[in-house]
Amino acid sequence: MILRVDRLLTELPPPSTPDPAGARIVQELLGGKFGEMSTFMNYTFQSFNFRARQQARPFYDLIANIGAEEYGHIELVSAAINSMLTGASIKEMTESRNSQQFIAGGKSCLPQDSMGKPWNGDYVTATGDLVEDLTHNFFLETGARNNKLKVYESVEHPAARALTGYLLVRGGVHQVAYARAVELLTGADLSKLFPAPRIPTDKIPESKVHLEQGEHAKLYRFSPDDYKELAAVWKGPHPETGDDLVVIDKAPEGFPPVDLPSEPDAFAPDYAPEEIAEIAKKLRTQAGLPEIPTGVVANDTN
Amino acid sequence: MILRVDRLLTELPPPSTPDPAGARIVQELLGGKFGEMSTFMNYTFQSFNFRARQQARPFYDLIANIGAEEYGHIELVSAAINSMLTGASIKEMTESRNSQQFIAGGKSCLPQDSMGKPWNGDYVTATGDLVEDLTHNFFLETGARNNKLKVYESVEHPAARALTGYLLVRGGVHQVAYARAVELLTGADLSKLFPAPRIPTDKIPESKVHLEQGEHAKLYRFSPDDYKELAAVWKGPHPETGDDLVVIDKAPEGFPPVDLPSEPDAFAPDYAPEEIAEIAKKLRTQAGLPEIPTGVVANDTN
Amino acid sequence: MILRVDRLLTELPPPSTPDPAGARIVQELLGGKFGEMSTFMNYTFQSFNFRARQQARPFYDLIANIGAEEYGHIELVSAAINSMLTGASIKEMTESRNSQQFIAGGKSCLPQDSMGKPWNGDYVTATGDLVEDLTHNFFLETGARNNKLKVYESVEHPAARALTGYLLVRGGVHQVAYARAVELLTGADLSKLFPAPRIPTDKIPESKVHLEQGEHAKLYRFSPDDYKELAAVWKGPHPETGDDLVVIDKAPEGFPPVDLPSEPDAFAPDYAPEEIAEIAKKLRTQAGLPEIPTGVVANDTN
Amino acid sequence: MILRVDRLLTELPPPSTPDPAGARIVQELLGGKFGEMSTFMNYTFQSFNFRARQQARPFYDLIANIGAEEYGHIELVSAAINSMLTGASIKEMTESRNSQQFIAGGKSCLPQDSMGKPWNGDYVTATGDLVEDLTHNFFLETGARNNKLKVYESVEHPAARALTGYLLVRGGVHQVAYARAVELLTGADLSKLFPAPRIPTDKIPESKVHLEQGEHAKLYRFSPDDYKELAAVWKGPHPETGDDLVVIDKAPEGFPPVDLPSEPDAFAPDYAPEEIAEIAKKLRTQAGLPEIPTGVVANDTN
Amino acid sequence: MILRVDRLLTELPPPSTPDPAGARIVQELLGGKFGEMSTFMNYTFQSFNFRARQQARPFYDLIANIGAEEYGHIELVSAAINSMLTGASIKEMTESRNSQQFIAGGKSCLPQDSMGKPWNGDYVTATGDLVEDLTHNFFLETGARNNKLKVYESVEHPAARALTGYLLVRGGVHQVAYARAVELLTGADLSKLFPAPRIPTDKIPESKVHLEQGEHAKLYRFSPDDYKELAAVWKGPHPETGDDLVVIDKAPEGFPPVDLPSEPDAFAPDYAPEEIAEIAKKLRTQAGLPEIPTGVVANDTN
Amino acid sequence: MILRVDRLLTELPPPSTPDPAGARIVQELLGGKFGEMSTFMNYTFQSFNFRARQQARPFYDLIANIGAEEYGHIELVSAAINSMLTGASIKEMTESRNSQQFIAGGKSCLPQDSMGKPWNGDYVTATGDLVEDLTHNFFLETGARNNKLKVYESVEHPAARALTGYLLVRGGVHQVAYARAVELLTGADLSKLFPAPRIPTDKIPESKVHLEQGEHAKLYRFSPDDYKELAAVWKGPHPETGDDLVVIDKAPEGFPPVDLPSEPDAFAPDYAPEEIAEIAKKLRTQAGLPEIPTGVVANDTN
Repeated sequence: MILRVDRLLTELPPPSTPDPAGARIVQELLGGKFGEMSTFMNYTFQSFNFRARQQARPFYDLIANIGAEEYGHIELVSAAINSMLTGASIKEMTESRNSQQFIAGGKSCLPQDSMGKPWNGDYVTATGDLVEDLTHNFFLETGARNNKLKVYESVEHPAARALTGYLLVRGGVHQVAYARAVELLTGADLSKLFPAPRIPTDKIPESKVHLEQGEHAKLYRFSPDDYKELAAVWKGPHPETGDDLVVIDKAPEGFPPVDLPSEPDAFAPDYAPEEIAEIAKKLRTQAGLPEIPTGVVANDTN
Repeated sequence: MILRVDRLLTELPPPSTPDPAGARIVQELLGGKFGEMSTFMNYTFQSFNFRARQQARPFYDLIANIGAEEYGHIELVSAAINSMLTGASIKEMTESRNSQQFIAGGKSCLPQDSMGKPWNGDYVTATGDLVEDLTHNFFLETGARNNKLKVYESVEHPAARALTGYLLVRGGVHQVAYARAVELLTGADLSKLFPAPRIPTDKIPESKVHLEQGEHAKLYRFSPDDYKELAAVWKGPHPETGDDLVVIDKAPEGFPPVDLPSEPDAFAPDYAPEEIAEIAKKLRTQAGLPEIPTGVVANDTN
Repeated sequence: MILRVDRLLTELPPPSTPDPAGARIVQELLGGKFGEMSTFMNYTFQSFNFRARQQARPFYDLIANIGAEEYGHIELVSAAINSMLTGASIKEMTESRNSQQFIAGGKSCLPQDSMGKPWNGDYVTATGDLVEDLTHNFFLETGARNNKLKVYESVEHPAARALTGYLLVRGGVHQVAYARAVELLTGADLSKLFPAPRIPTDKIPESKVHLEQGEHAKLYRFSPDDYKELAAVWKGPHPETGDDLVVIDKAPEGFPPVDLPSEPDAFAPDYAPEEIAEIAKKLRTQAGLPEIPTGVVANDTN
Repeated sequence: MILRVDRLLTELPPPSTPDPAGARIVQELLGGKFGEMSTFMNYTFQSFNFRARQQARPFYDLIANIGAEEYGHIELVSAAINSMLTGASIKEMTESRNSQQFIAGGKSCLPQDSMGKPWNGDYVTATGDLVEDLTHNFFLETGARNNKLKVYESVEHPAARALTGYLLVRGGVHQVAYARAVELLTGADLSKLFPAPRIPTDKIPESKVHLEQGEHAKLYRFSPDDYKELAAVWKGPHPETGDDLVVIDKAPEGFPPVDLPSEPDAFAPDYAPEEIAEIAKKLRTQAGLPEIPTGVVANDTN
Repeated sequence: MILRVDRLLTELPPPSTPDPAGARIVQELLGGKFGEMSTFMNYTFQSFNFRARQQARPFYDLIANIGAEEYGHIELVSAAINSMLTGASIKEMTESRNSQQFIAGGKSCLPQDSMGKPWNGDYVTATGDLVEDLTHNFFLETGARNNKLKVYESVEHPAARALTGYLLVRGGVHQVAYARAVELLTGADLSKLFPAPRIPTDKIPESKVHLEQGEHAKLYRFSPDDYKELAAVWKGPHPETGDDLVVIDKAPEGFPPVDLPSEPDAFAPDYAPEEIAEIAKKLRTQAGLPEIPTGVVANDTN
Repeated sequence: MILRVDRLLTELPPPSTPDPAGARIVQELLGGKFGEMSTFMNYTFQSFNFRARQQARPFYDLIANIGAEEYGHIELVSAAINSMLTGASIKEMTESRNSQQFIAGGKSCLPQDSMGKPWNGDYVTATGDLVEDLTHNFFLETGARNNKLKVYESVEHPAARALTGYLLVRGGVHQVAYARAVELLTGADLSKLFPAPRIPTDKIPESKVHLEQGEHAKLYRFSPDDYKELAAVWKGPHPETGDDLVVIDKAPEGFPPVDLPSEPDAFAPDYAPEEIAEIAKKLRTQAGLPEIPTGVVANDTN
């Protein structure tokens, strides 16, 4: 089970110039073969299916815990796409290659790749064989890094750049984590494979800010009380920087999301959103809730 | 972002007689059009894409919070399938209609339906139109209830019965919740639509135990600090029983999962799992972790 | 079985300025999840699979009869797309996002959505459970209305506007019909859910003309001798306008289709269409058919 | 547009011993690449997309009219499958390879093939090039005949045999029709290609009865007033029997369908179908309809 | 088994102005329903599955041998696409409808069609029935010719024109070959069906050059020692030109491929390709290989 | 381009007791995500798309050459499946989970996995990034080895055992080759990852025979004149056995395939195969071919 926290893992800029063309490209990081739906679901199913986990606890904890972090990544990619679509005119939406972000999504993301192909369960590899799954995961993160770098190159919108800059650093953590796990289990030395693709991460300005905060060397524990054996795997020097790998024994604090404005021409949340607001207000009052909404958003005007 | 808790939402019996034929049927509840991957991803994407959420906070909180509970449901279905496959011989696995639970999954579940078709993103409807999405969700829960009832009828294995008995009750909560939300927004009265399908839930012994504990009338808040406006929607009488709908202001405690044994003939977690265990033990010691694994499992022998 | 009538349900303007970009968007109404292939096939299969139909005749007649009307809708969407593609240059066709309307279709529509994804049988829900299927159908029409509104907004070509203006009214009839059926079976009151999405249909000029003719309140009987019990369900006031719902005991007269011109650069019907015409003429003579083709088309020059 | 007639093209036996294993095989004739959904949709879309049809009227009429007949074939295959599933126990349904005929279909057919793969729009070839489309259609009917023969061999249930016996004869008509059309347009002689596959149709007892009634040489006109130029193509000797090809200037009379009984354990049409019947009865009375249902079914007990 | 020869079947021009928009269209000839993956895999699987081949040796040899030639066609289409993408800027790649040629392919082709839909095994028809498979193959080549003609019309890039000009001639050979095989087996006369589509091939300048070399009448034997019975089928006059059909008892010589330059911004073959080159050079030396690479490429500068 | 050689890479036993249930499982090795279609197409497309190959010749040669060998593997799996289906009764075919091996394939294999899902182009990863593609290939071979081991365990039919015994050894060669390539490029040491899955290959009797012939240490050159730089990568000790890795500078001799008998009830190659044989014989004579078929098959009775 999970507890959901209504905060984003990194800060995204507020909506600016709409960029449906870019938003369509960013979909690859959400629903593509190497997108965050894939990393999330691969590790989640591997953890569900982990047999004799008690005997191999550090590896179970690693996979389960990284799976939990990946949820935050699908959330983040979605927020970036939605931000990029905010304020787009119908004409801009329609001229975009991804017509369904408007027609099906109401100016929002969808679980599909940059060509509009829906994410599917075939992208999950969960064989139950621990060494094989870890090897797969190392490769999956390599493919994901490739795609993040290319989306970074392709899209200049500030939300996309903030997104990819952050994901490159955190995806790199997972890439290292799976390499370490393979090494500790087999004795193989994968450290020379970094970085893969072989472009130094600190060449990306939007990544560098996170590197400077040491985010590339930290593994957060995304649980109130579980997954306590991460340190048995996440240790030693970072293969690129040599920094000590450290476990942070709690989740990061995160950032409140921007409450994106309504888009009445997409009926999101309604053709006449003020009527929804009216009803909600009344219901809140009836329920004895405070007059000001309890939710915390980045652009709260109260 | 999420915090993951290594507990299951209900108690499942320990592995007993293997039932690959049944486990194949239960896949429909995991990766089918009306399975838990669908409910999880529908509500999750709807919450990601919710515009002007601050103004409609009770509805946003409802969808986001139910989405969080659904994660626990994919986890639970997976645990039930894996339990049903535990101890199955290769011959039993191969004679099952779902050959990939063995070949691809190593005697485990996969994100696919009962015919082996992978779950895909087309099963997600997230239009951004609040009334439409809620109407959809009410229907989705109706279809899910239909499928749970049929799987209940089809599979007699105790894990499947415990699973479906529980899911019927909790899925019913979500069905009521979305009906209530539609009612409060539009004035339409959906209460006469219950139960749908029109078989009383208390006819199912494995559901009745949960009904008696009032689980059909409780909406848990699956978050440390967020989604506090559920009570603005989740209120009034239950359409079937008349019981007061109540918000429980925290997540349920849950139950530790069974640590399913290794299946060496499926290389899960290895052909020689004891070697993995040996390595893990050493790593735990090196990391200064306690000698006994820190994870809590139902069948802990320490 | 069916009898086919070579007329369209509404009048479409003759080809004008080609609009492949628009034609690609309109595909969503043909082969999308909420397109007319979906409404047609959902109701058709539900009618095929209707058990104990004699006992529930009014509901069977309703579903079967609406299914029959939907055939006319896939025909209409196809005619609109083909009209929009008529006269497009190869360059225009190739620059369109949907390259297959040229390469596979010869400047014509295809059974796929606006992203080129083929329609598929997963879009059909036919559970056999009457209340569930009707609930589903109400939701399906809601999703279809959403998509029609968005295509209306997106595409200004007169054929697309005539199409969507008409479909919004007739789709609305089906939405009301399924709501009425649910109400009569369960007692639930869905009338407050109209319109959904909540934009009044009479705001659309191309719909208004049909509203003024009362098309929103009429259910035609699409059969020479069957489906005579529609009036048991289709009765009472229209939930939006209050007009009396009336059954028209025959199909509408319809309009002859435009005979779209050949497109030799797409080999439709041939690289040298005049040779086809020559052969056809000879065959007609040999068969003792009148010199002038017997078919009736809107642009008949004889 | 179409008018729907609530009759089947041939007589099917009433339900007898249930045969879910056979019903799963028959799905190939419904939703397979060479199934009736394919023939129906190929010819229907080809007719929608037919350019300069007035000049090539006999060929347009042929394709449009055969398309209309194919609707009756998807109806017939569906009826056969549903009949074969009638009365099956849940255990029988669950042990069948096609678990979704129960879980999704409520003991009914689905638009998918014998492996559970949904029919999809990629199975439609509608290029607009008349000779190419006709060549394709000849091949499609050849593949369809292959599959019908194999299903005939595979399934002994009387409904399946009645179905395939009939479809082999009528599919043969379409195969001849497209061959004739190609011949008349190009001068190529395809008559030596019959039968294909090269097993004489009269070896099939269930086909022979239809051959003896001359059904292999008749092309029915499935329209009140259109498609009057069929005789320009459908003429000359039958390539296998030498019989004169004749156009029947109306649709066949058809047979009333069997009203299949309810399946309460599949909630079809309900868990308590008698309640549905009660409501329907009341509604019929309120609407001034006769006490006895107006629909005509084969097993009417009134 | 195969022996691979590192040469292309025809000469392609060296990279010139990049044309991602055109390269996206050419994908239809690679991974489309009628693309070269389809012809290659159809004939290959038909040859694998050919029963009693010794008794029907000329037909087996024909299918197996054409299958071998088709490998060279997927190679050729790939080379053309890759050439068209060479030197494209990231902006050009991203503005193309096919975003995955950059993100997934690193400025290269992918096994998908012009809409980005992956090629799939459903495009293979291999029934084992010889006459049926040959009939299918004749139709498949007809569809392929249609698509090649349309891509020729759509894309003016010299690589695309050289490609389609060549493929039209060689595809025509296969179309004739299958027609001949059907004729010899059944007596049907398909020669009047040529050309199909009915545009004379010699109207295409880029085809004419190959026609003048008699390439339309030659069937090469793509094997060192097998498939020696081609002449039993490939004989008689060409249906369009009347030229004698001749078997060439060896494979064509072919042309060395252009070694396309690295694309560092797509990490192909690396972000720093000179480092790869350095390592390769060292390894070659260590292995005692000559200093100059042994491979033969069109643009060898040594 | 390729030259095709009509021989199999290893010897398969002649048909014995039919085993459709096993043949369905073996499909996973043909059309599954980790099947031979995947290995063949991954390496083939990677070689097509290899940029600056002259500078990195040893790696290009390695990938292209292994791609060529993989063709022989899809051929071999197909032959094994077809052998297992030979002589199966219609009843046996129909009771098999894979109904399409009979209905679509005529008692033959199809390009689909063990659940009947068609192979598709999404299974190809060809990023252009050399290190990434090699890393992927190492993982792909690991997954393929897992599946081969499981099919070995699942199916006892002698053809399946001969197949998997052989493929395990040759797949192991490719796994080592890609590991070596990664090592030489990056310095990472993957040798400790062998075997993966961690079951020693020599535990498999049907593999042991090939190990004893040193097949695990040989890389054959599958080309008359190309791919001459394999030795720059394929060198050093085998990571499991320590044997020297050696390049064999030609393709293996191979074995003639068994000519599988006709299956008239599946129309393969015909309902009356003797008529096909008759025609073929006549054609051979007319063409001046020797009386005895020229093809070489294992079971030649001449």
